[in-house]
Amino acid sequence: MPTVIDHVLGRLREIGVADVFGVPGDYSFGVSDAVVAHPDIAWIGCSNELNAAYAADGYARIKGAAAISTTFGVGELSAINGIAGSFAEQLPVFHLVGTPDTATQRRRAIMHHTLGLGDYDVYRRMTEPVVCAYAELTPENVVVETERLIAAAIYHRRPVYLTFPADLINKPIVEGPVGHPRTTSDPESLEAAVEAIVGQLEEATTAVVLPGILVRRAGAEDELRAFIDAWRLPFATMFMAKSVLDEQHPGYAGMYDGALMNSGVKEFVESRDLVIDVASPFSDFNSGAFTSQIDPQRLITIGHHDVQVAGRTYPGAELRDVLAALAAAATAREWPRVVPEPRPDPVGAGADPLSVEALYPRWERFIRPDDIVVAETGTVSMGLGFAHLPAGATFHNQTLWGSIGWATPAAFGAAIARRDRRVLLFTGDGSHQLTAQEIGQFKRYGVKPIVFVLNNDGYLIERLLCKDPEIEYNDIAAWNYALLPAALGCDDWYTARVATCGELDDALAAAADAASGAYIEVVTDAYAASPLAEALGTALKALRKGS
Amino acid sequence: MPTVIDHVLGRLREIGVADVFGVPGDYSFGVSDAVVAHPDIAWIGCSNELNAAYAADGYARIKGAAAISTTFGVGELSAINGIAGSFAEQLPVFHLVGTPDTATQRRRAIMHHTLGLGDYDVYRRMTEPVVCAYAELTPENVVVETERLIAAAIYHRRPVYLTFPADLINKPIVEGPVGHPRTTSDPESLEAAVEAIVGQLEEATTAVVLPGILVRRAGAEDELRAFIDAWRLPFATMFMAKSVLDEQHPGYAGMYDGALMNSGVKEFVESRDLVIDVASPFSDFNSGAFTSQIDPQRLITIGHHDVQVAGRTYPGAELRDVLAALAAAATAREWPRVVPEPRPDPVGAGADPLSVEALYPRWERFIRPDDIVVAETGTVSMGLGFAHLPAGATFHNQTLWGSIGWATPAAFGAAIARRDRRVLLFTGDGSHQLTAQEIGQFKRYGVKPIVFVLNNDGYLIERLLCKDPEIEYNDIAAWNYALLPAALGCDDWYTARVATCGELDDALAAAADAASGAYIEVVTDAYAASPLAEALGTALKALRKGS
Repeated sequence: MPTVIDHVLGRLREIGVADVFGVPGDYSFGVSDAVVAHPDIAWIGCSNELNAAYAADGYARIKGAAAISTTFGVGELSAINGIAGSFAEQLPVFHLVGTPDTATQRRRAIMHHTLGLGDYDVYRRMTEPVVCAYAELTPENVVVETERLIAAAIYHRRPVYLTFPADLINKPIVEGPVGHPRTTSDPESLEAAVEAIVGQLEEATTAVVLPGILVRRAGAEDELRAFIDAWRLPFATMFMAKSVLDEQHPGYAGMYDGALMNSGVKEFVESRDLVIDVASPFSDFNSGAFTSQIDPQRLITIGHHDVQVAGRTYPGAELRDVLAALAAAATAREWPRVVPEPRPDPVGAGADPLSVEALYPRWERFIRPDDIVVAETGTVSMGLGFAHLPAGATFHNQTLWGSIGWATPAAFGAAIARRDRRVLLFTGDGSHQLTAQEIGQFKRYGVKPIVFVLNNDGYLIERLLCKDPEIEYNDIAAWNYALLPAALGCDDWYTARVATCGELDDALAAAADAASGAYIEVVTDAYAASPLAEALGTALKALRKGS
Repeated sequence: MPTVIDHVLGRLREIGVADVFGVPGDYSFGVSDAVVAHPDIAWIGCSNELNAAYAADGYARIKGAAAISTTFGVGELSAINGIAGSFAEQLPVFHLVGTPDTATQRRRAIMHHTLGLGDYDVYRRMTEPVVCAYAELTPENVVVETERLIAAAIYHRRPVYLTFPADLINKPIVEGPVGHPRTTSDPESLEAAVEAIVGQLEEATTAVVLPGILVRRAGAEDELRAFIDAWRLPFATMFMAKSVLDEQHPGYAGMYDGALMNSGVKEFVESRDLVIDVASPFSDFNSGAFTSQIDPQRLITIGHHDVQVAGRTYPGAELRDVLAALAAAATAREWPRVVPEPRPDPVGAGADPLSVEALYPRWERFIRPDDIVVAETGTVSMGLGFAHLPAGATFHNQTLWGSIGWATPAAFGAAIARRDRRVLLFTGDGSHQLTAQEIGQFKRYGVKPIVFVLNNDGYLIERLLCKDPEIEYNDIAAWNYALLPAALGCDDWYTARVATCGELDDALAAAADAASGAYIEVVTDAYAASPLAEALGTALKALRKGS
């Protein structure tokens, strides 16, 4: 019989988890030992637990699921913001926590990493709101509980929490049936939902699809593409879902961000007879600060597990099944389309400073087909979110959770998930300082990202949002970013500090050719904000005044 | 009328909080703005929220209380492990969190930094187990709630949690009575407790006091010293409470760590007729892995708010009052004493490698009177814990919570708390990597620590505790530590990398004379473990097998 931990790891491997991110600790040696001993799973050590959680989040964005191992108390609580982010952004992350043995727990002993009160259930209670399921695993329950946890993580696309008492983790399991049932649709509800959507499509003269990030989270990109191709429908993309469908697809209308950006796309989307929203959350930063205005009468929502058409809800209709059935029921038609507006050429050359108009178009052109782009919350992602991506390139951002610092470790996780792809990390100086030490892990694990740190001397997005842009709390420590990779062990990386168009052009050429990783500090004016950042600052201030 | 936030800040200032650590965020601008505007409170920006919480913890260890400001959701959850540590180690930290305005909360809007479910109470529920009180502050409740929160934080010496909805934070307060009552003892219970203790003392021939860290947390060091001086009692110190009384005091017997170290002290303590424990927790790492053996019949416990003598509990007897009354009731006697064993001289010179016998005695001699020593969890603190400190030097460690990474930001917090004192940070490479970016803050805020990073190529304490010392998860990224200060903006610091006795001697001399901060990477063999670390490894393995 396999042991408790080996059973869990084996099942995680079967659903695609080939790496476990983490920081070891004495209570969690049993987990780390088993990961290292597993022939098909690698231990990926991280600088700290929050970074490990962000790395797992980035990995899950690429591979569909991820795992992290931390120790009891101190480790798991350091990771909890990262886990909460994966909950908000719907990523199944398996959080494996080694705990004191059951005898110690029963004795209520005052052990290190406890609050000193003998309460061994307290971290589970703290974790419960940010996971969709949890279990303490024993030889007796591990088979059935592992299936329940996997099923929950996959059904909800949310994290789950697994604890392993030290005395049980290496005990042989008590056998039982393995294999979680794939959730299937209620056939009648599915048929009725599809019929209702097809009916609406047949009546409409104009239509548009708004694909949400959940399409990627649910692994339903192929079904969505089949649906759109079969009906030849146009689509526009909201911020959180950028690149969920290829931006070179002929149906792509551009980025839709309410009234804040791309007024042509707004006009196109909001004037359609029918808007098919495929699980897009209308959150503040995903809806142009609530400036999107879609007539609810003309809106169809295809959710993760249900569909809403004309005021009626069809439960038990799975996203993937609905899209597949819609593709099968298609009538090819010519819907009115719109082509994305041409993107501006970069301005400036030589010693010209890096204005917004100089910088973002250069970055946009630097992105190659199939690149994985990880963009930090803040003015940087707001600028890049409107780049027109080449075929196969994907864009990753934390639009709902928005925890600054996420992008650096998340890019590391993404690089581990797809070692064959080029990973571009775009971050800002303020955000980068939260988690910068994770740069050292790229080198340690032999992955070679291209990192851009936008140095605008502080928290620019906060300067735009707060009452006094120059107030001291928007300042940060003055780092010498270009020295950082060497200090963190990336001795052979290409590093540069650029402040002019010519310097950036040279650095981009060098980074593209580098055999190593690359790390480029890009110095701009403190107020060189991307257009969306400017617009959002204005819109959010208005929103706040109105409330 | 002052505003809600100004009222809270004013009261915090009155109880000694002169600095607020934090990271700004858009929901918490109201807090940060008010801190910056406050004439007598400084904003101390940190690299990330966990580091800010650790810095606040370090500050509270020196000043008795501290405050941290983080933003809703992402910020507060990143800090929560640091807050939990302050709870475990009994430090009053005021956690100020700006939240969305009440209208947004009522609407259950899907805003950034939410889980996307419209639940605005979820972070309070997650925080509740690691604070002793919390409140959402409004103009109507702020006066009374602030007093309640301060009273709770001071009574329990634990963190409290304050949330400020954005629309209420700058509203004028509704007036009310200000001033929290100081907790006073029940006079009868106090008198009975003191009488019982005096009775036991008068009957005893031998006795020893074990002062706990709570004496410092409760600000009762003067009362404890008065008690010990008046009775001329000897005392021994357990790990967590190291330096709570001056180690140059004539009554000092040495460090007591059960059977693991200093067998002479063990023999002395455990053979006394009477052991007076002043609020020492007998946790794993504070009791030599539960190897301390004190006869309960001969044990008196003076707790934070009660006393236990001969099987009877005296509630409502405050620590400080009990100690003061005992001092007043003293009869000077000559109790048998023991002098601390002489500490070994450093071995080696010149090109000799830095063995344990070469390193720790050199560090011990480097410590000056009145230094603030912050020692990280792991082999480093276990080595320094047995140093014989000069007069006025204090030692700070996280013995119960043991969250590695704590020491670097905590040393920063301590340095802000006492800018007139020399701060020495002793950390290990594994721990330092979790929070190393906080080094940049020392320079930014003009404080000049002396930092020692023990580079033993990985997590040494874990090598000693796990089943295979060479297993890969004990490895870490290979940093070039000596380059780090410059990368983090500390351009003018003295930095060195030393691997021999001669190099260390030179570096110690240079650091002592440096006008700037100093940062010294100390390279030892991967297995150069302090004696306690060795002993603890063996003891904990046995403990685990026995359970």
